[in-house]
Parts: sequence; structure tokens; C-alpha cells
Amino acid sequence: MPEPHTIGFAHKKIPAVRGANPKQERSVRTRLRVLLGAAELFTERGFRQASVQDVADRVEVTKGAVYFHYPTKEALALAIVDEHYARWPELLAAVTAEELGPLDTAARMLDRAALAFQDDVIVQAGARLQIERPQIEAELPTPYVDWISLLESLLVSAQEAGELRPDVVPAKAAHSLVSAFFGSQHVSDVLSNREDVVSRWRDMSTLLFHSIRAD
Amino acid sequence: MPEPHTIGFAHKKIPAVRGANPKQERSVRTRLRVLLGAAELFTERGFRQASVQDVADRVEVTKGAVYFHYPTKEALALAIVDEHYARWPELLAAVTAEELGPLDTAARMLDRAALAFQDDVIVQAGARLQIERPQIEAELPTPYVDWISLLESLLVSAQEAGELRPDVVPAKAAHSLVSAFFGSQHVSDVLSNREDVVSRWRDMSTLLFHSIRAD
Repeated sequence: MPEPHTIGFAHKKIPAVRGANPKQERSVRTRLRVLLGAAELFTERGFRQASVQDVADRVEVTKGAVYFHYPTKEALALAIVDEHYARWPELLAAVTAEELGPLDTAARMLDRAALAFQDDVIVQAGARLQIERPQIEAELPTPYVDWISLLESLLVSAQEAGELRPDVVPAKAAHSLVSAFFGSQHVSDVLSNREDVVSRWRDMSTLLFHSIRAD
Repeated sequence: MPEPHTIGFAHKKIPAVRGANPKQERSVRTRLRVLLGAAELFTERGFRQASVQDVADRVEVTKGAVYFHYPTKEALALAIVDEHYARWPELLAAVTAEELGPLDTAARMLDRAALAFQDDVIVQAGARLQIERPQIEAELPTPYVDWISLLESLLVSAQEAGELRPDVVPAKAAHSLVSAFFGSQHVSDVLSNREDVVSRWRDMSTLLFHSIRAD
């Protein structure tokens, strides 16, 4: 499998401030609270229906404190989307450490991502903001392409390892997996507020991997 | 197969005015032009970014003429979404006339729906408006559920006809098909403006039906 940390995910997490003085540490904590509060509001209401004042009220800081960290609501949205994408290289590192085969690595990545869509407000907010991208005056990263690229790499490795059915085309199957995952979590969001996202993805994944995996 | 016209699709097309006088006919034509123009604009820009004035300009009528047929922008959106849903009973009638088995009927319905997402601006606009439903102050119908219900009925019939693999659960498979279809057309919309929606759905459909269909 070609160095998994270098494939697919271009967005890197901004490292946390370390060894900072107490004032700096408090500032970092406030910034994180603001980010999480905004993520909750964007998830619940959407970008347009949540104001900077709402974010300030939610995390009990002044509007000025929000603006100190994020000069515009768009900057907040962009930071959340970046943080959303920063989740996936971390997840890849964790799954890679399990030393599964490439096809099981792909399946496990998607299963763990479904859990994140259920539990992680940054992931939920990032997804909603991406859906609302035409309403947001900021250059959000192109969605889906990093995941498609990662899964294609894993499926190519799986093919070389003889794990795929002979007629599976890695690029096409990767595209289908990402599209199906997106659809699964979105329909779950609309119909059940993502309460069934993990089990719905399990049903979908069972069907798709049955067709992808060699008998 | 249990009377296909009565299952799944609750939304019925409003019948066209027939035998009306020339003035009424002109009015009906204008209403349709307004509806199509609005569908184009909502598809291109989204609900918020297109105004009633933009619609009037697009179809070369006065703003008053638009308001005569649709008293608010929300009423326009609702009419387009209703028209979107009215497509599917018509499609079901056309596909049913081909007298395929239930599983092939399901597959054909989805293939024809993919074509509609490529070619039919009412279908495209309806899908975008549904995605933007949190931004629209109107009671849009709940998406996905009619399609899930239709496909479940067809898969139950397919199961009774011995067309399914033994471990396929019709309700779950129907939910997966609808979610995968939605994801496929959405990712195609975002990444390629739906230019590849038909071929992407074909790839997805091949994987899913391979797992659903009995060997």
C-alpha cells in the first residue's frame, strides 16, 4: 500500500499552540469554544440562519471576542470546514495502525467516518456547510475529491493484492463508494437527524463491498 | 406486482386545462414559461440568489405577470417541487408499460430518473430546492420517502418472484438504492454539473444490483 499518509487528503490540521503562556492558552481555548459553538449552530440552523451574535450567545463570550478570532462569519465557516477535512488524515493514521489489508482499510475508514457523522459536530457542521456552499461567500475546498482519491489508492492496492472481483474498476468503485456514503449520511440527516447513520451505512456498505470484494 | 400506480408516489400532476378559450390558453402557456424560467434560475443560482425580477427578465414578462401566477417566490418553489414529484408517477406508468419483472422495473425506473436529472430542468430544480429546503419558507414535501416506498414494493414483489439474493431485506435495500441514487446525482452535480450523472449512476447501479439480484 503506497504510504497512506501522503495520499488523498491534502488538508492538514493546524498544530495546537504548545508551551504558550496562560493568556495565550486561554485564547486558544476560547477560539476552540467559539469554533464548536458555531459548529453546533450551523449544524442546527444552517449558515444563513445563525448569526455571529448567536455564536457569541451560545458560548457566552462577547461578539467582539468572536470577531477577534474570526473576523467574519465566512472565516468561521471556512475554519470549520478545514477542521472537518483535518479529521480524515487523523482517522487514516488511526485505521492504518490497525494493519488491515487495503480493502478492509477502505471499509473501516468509511465505517469510522459514519460514526464521526453521528457523533462529531465539526464533521456534521462541515458537511452541512459544504451542502450550503452556494450561499457562503468563501472559497471552500472542493468536496469529495480527497476521499475519492484515497479510496481509489486503496482499491488499486486491493486489486494488486487480489482482493477485488475481476471486473471492478478502482476509480469507478471509489467514486461510487464516496457518492453512496454522502447520500447515505444526507438522507439519514434529512429523515432521522442522523440517528440511523451508522446502521444505514452498514446496510449500504454490505451491498457495495459484496460486489467489490473477490469471492 | 401490486397495482404500481397506487404505491409510493402520493403527488399527482395537476391536469392541464383543456378546451379553454385562447386567453386562458395563453395564460396557461405563460404560467408554464414562468415555471420553466424559474426552474432554470433556481438550478443555476439557487433559491436565494434568484429573485422574482430575475424570473420575469428571464421569460420576458412583467414582474406583475409572475405574481399573477405565483403570489410569492416560495409559491414558485413549491410549484416546481410539486412538478418534480409529478414526474415520477408518469415515469412509473411508462416503465410499467414495458412489462419487465419487478426487479428490472426498479432498475429501469432509476436509470430513467438519472436521465431526467441530466435533461429535465424541473427535476434538477426540484432537487436543488429540496437541498435548500432549510432556506425556503414553505412546507416542501418530505423527500426520498415516496421513492423508498415504491422501490420497497418492487423489491418485495421481486423477492416473491425469487429474483433477490436470499439475504436481501427489501426495506433496507430500497433505502440504500435511494440514498445511493441521491448521492450519485449530487456528487455529479457538484463535480461535473451533472454531465456524467448517467454513467456514474450506471457504475453505482451495477455494483448495487449485483448484490441485490439472485445469481
